[in-house]
Amino acid sequence: MFRMSEQHERISILGLGAMGRALAGALLAAGREVTVWNRTPGKAGDLVARGAREVSSVEGAIDASDLTVACLLDDASVRETLAPVVQKLADRTLVNLTSGSVRQARELDRWLKEYGVRFLAGGIMAVPPTVGTEGAFILYSGARDLFDRVAPALSPLGRPHWVGEDPGFAALYDMAALSGMYGIGAGVDHAVRMLHAEGGDVETFKREVLRPWLEQMLPIFVAGADVSDTVPDEYNPEMQAVGLENILAASGEAGVPADLAGHLRASLWRMRRAVATAG
Amino acid sequence: MFRMSEQHERISILGLGAMGRALAGALLAAGREVTVWNRTPGKAGDLVARGAREVSSVEGAIDASDLTVACLLDDASVRETLAPVVQKLADRTLVNLTSGSVRQARELDRWLKEYGVRFLAGGIMAVPPTVGTEGAFILYSGARDLFDRVAPALSPLGRPHWVGEDPGFAALYDMAALSGMYGIGAGVDHAVRMLHAEGGDVETFKREVLRPWLEQMLPIFVAGADVSDTVPDEYNPEMQAVGLENILAASGEAGVPADLAGHLRASLWRMRRAVATAG
Ligand SMILES: NC(=O)c1ccc[n+]([C@@H]2O[C@H](COP(=O)([O-])OP(=O)(O)OC[C@H]3O[C@@H](n4cnc5c(N)ncnc54)[C@H](OP(=O)(O)O)[C@@H]3O)[C@@H](O)[C@H]2O)c1
Ligand SMILES: NC(=O)c1ccc[n+]([C@@H]2O[C@H](COP(=O)([O-])OP(=O)(O)OC[C@H]3O[C@@H](n4cnc5c(N)ncnc54)[C@H](OP(=O)(O)O)[C@@H]3O)[C@@H](O)[C@H]2O)c1
Repeated sequence: MFRMSEQHERISILGLGAMGRALAGALLAAGREVTVWNRTPGKAGDLVARGAREVSSVEGAIDASDLTVACLLDDASVRETLAPVVQKLADRTLVNLTSGSVRQARELDRWLKEYGVRFLAGGIMAVPPTVGTEGAFILYSGARDLFDRVAPALSPLGRPHWVGEDPGFAALYDMAALSGMYGIGAGVDHAVRMLHAEGGDVETFKREVLRPWLEQMLPIFVAGADVSDTVPDEYNPEMQAVGLENILAASGEAGVPADLAGHLRASLWRMRRAVATAG
Repeated sequence: MFRMSEQHERISILGLGAMGRALAGALLAAGREVTVWNRTPGKAGDLVARGAREVSSVEGAIDASDLTVACLLDDASVRETLAPVVQKLADRTLVNLTSGSVRQARELDRWLKEYGVRFLAGGIMAVPPTVGTEGAFILYSGARDLFDRVAPALSPLGRPHWVGEDPGFAALYDMAALSGMYGIGAGVDHAVRMLHAEGGDVETFKREVLRPWLEQMLPIFVAGADVSDTVPDEYNPEMQAVGLENILAASGEAGVPADLAGHLRASLWRMRRAVATAG
């Protein structure tokens, strides 16, 4: 029997790393009954004082709630944790918020369905301090009706956002978005190293130049992001290639490690291709 | 004689590429008297109809105003354009808004000062369609008093922002900020290619996942950008290295060209170093 009201109040969390603790904390703050388990005991921190029940076995965690959420290091740790108890999950709901590849999510889905598990794959679009805050959202993929039943229970973590029936799609959207985020990371690290090496004031630069400039450019670059190797004429790939070569030269002069310039070479590669293939 | 009111009304632009045309347009819209020159004639477009005077020689452009702004392809084109007329620039003001390296800006400054030119180096933090709009700003470096006299004249291009006496600093701040911007470019291109390759809906992804996620992460990454190779413990470099390896593997499965993954490898390099050097 699927009793909505009960299921939505009681949630078990597998994994009390930085993210698992943040998830449990957000659910407690929203008044859910939360049970937590972690491979290594003693990681519950103040969660117990705040009302969580800590159990010492995965089975105990699954038993305590109709809805179990896994947030472990990687796909291998999810397999290792669930394999001994997978039969217990039959007719129960498991939501996996552990990051992994598209194929891993699809294979996990196949395996769990063999055991009659109601499975939703997920991806957390937040970092621990922003879980449950405005702007945080959680990607889910799998059966739409299951998502509709589970979403209210998990909404304290961040706005639930369903991206498709394919169980691999939450991972796809998650990893694609992360690959975009690491572009920002590579770019800003590179930028502050150049500033520092030439004797500029890094904090003033970040506040008065880097952040406003990137905020101005972000929507333009997202809108213009393209799946082809062609570059629209109005982007003027020749001018951009000259610019990129200037930046690479200046980075070398400033002694920024070549490994950190990968994002520049990625862009230069596109511009050179566009120039070479242009009429 | 330096007559502020006159100088501020009459401005000459050297270079009518995409950016030079945008600069001239913004100055015309603000009621300045604008004279334009371009190496290849016939590039003034509707600027003449809007009130600009087109001249056929660099000398004519310099003569027409007390303030000349160069916006050409690169440093070499600036040298080539100014060398025959540099004596004409004595006791006049030249602002160079052509992008180039830090060293190029310092050398240009030395050369022009030998001829008694009042010189400001600049960097345009806008693209042609955003010139003169809210958010656009222009970096300047060089003598502070010269900046104070010139800034009001050029404010229609974008908020004037002085970054130091060192004539190389406008280029430094400009190129460092651009290196950050290209990180966004590398990241978002990579992201949409992954989506597309696996059959996801690129436009929905951009609007509902990529842009909100990057807007959420941008301030965090700018604040955390660091000049050292160490990664703070709370960033959990091991978890991040696993995540980056997942994204790289998934990118390979999706057939995204390895050249485009440079920004991911730049981040992976830092995480691996941090794990290797950790206690
Ligand atoms: N932190 C973030 O910013 C962030 C953001 C979005 C998504 N995520 C994802 O959330 C997940 C957890 O991240 P985190 O930051 O919490 O990582 P973390 O702090 O490193 O925690 C890892 C967790 O996985 C457990 N674990 C590792 N190997 C295991 C195994 N073989 N069997 C059982 N448990 C195992 C650890 O238990 P022990 O204590 O016993 O080692 C710990 O609870 C990852 O998939 C990550 O990609 C994290
Ligand atoms: N477009 C942007 O998004 C942007 C943003 C910020 C900064 N900038 C910077 O602004 C500058 C101009 O960019 P743009 O977009 O206008 O480039 P562009 O459209 O390619 O125009 C290049 C200009 O340089 C002139 N030129 C090239 N070589 C020359 C030479 N040897 N002698 C004299 N003139 C020469 C060209 O004249 P001809 O017509 O005779 O070829 C043309 O006017 C660059 O330094 C760029 O980095 C551009």
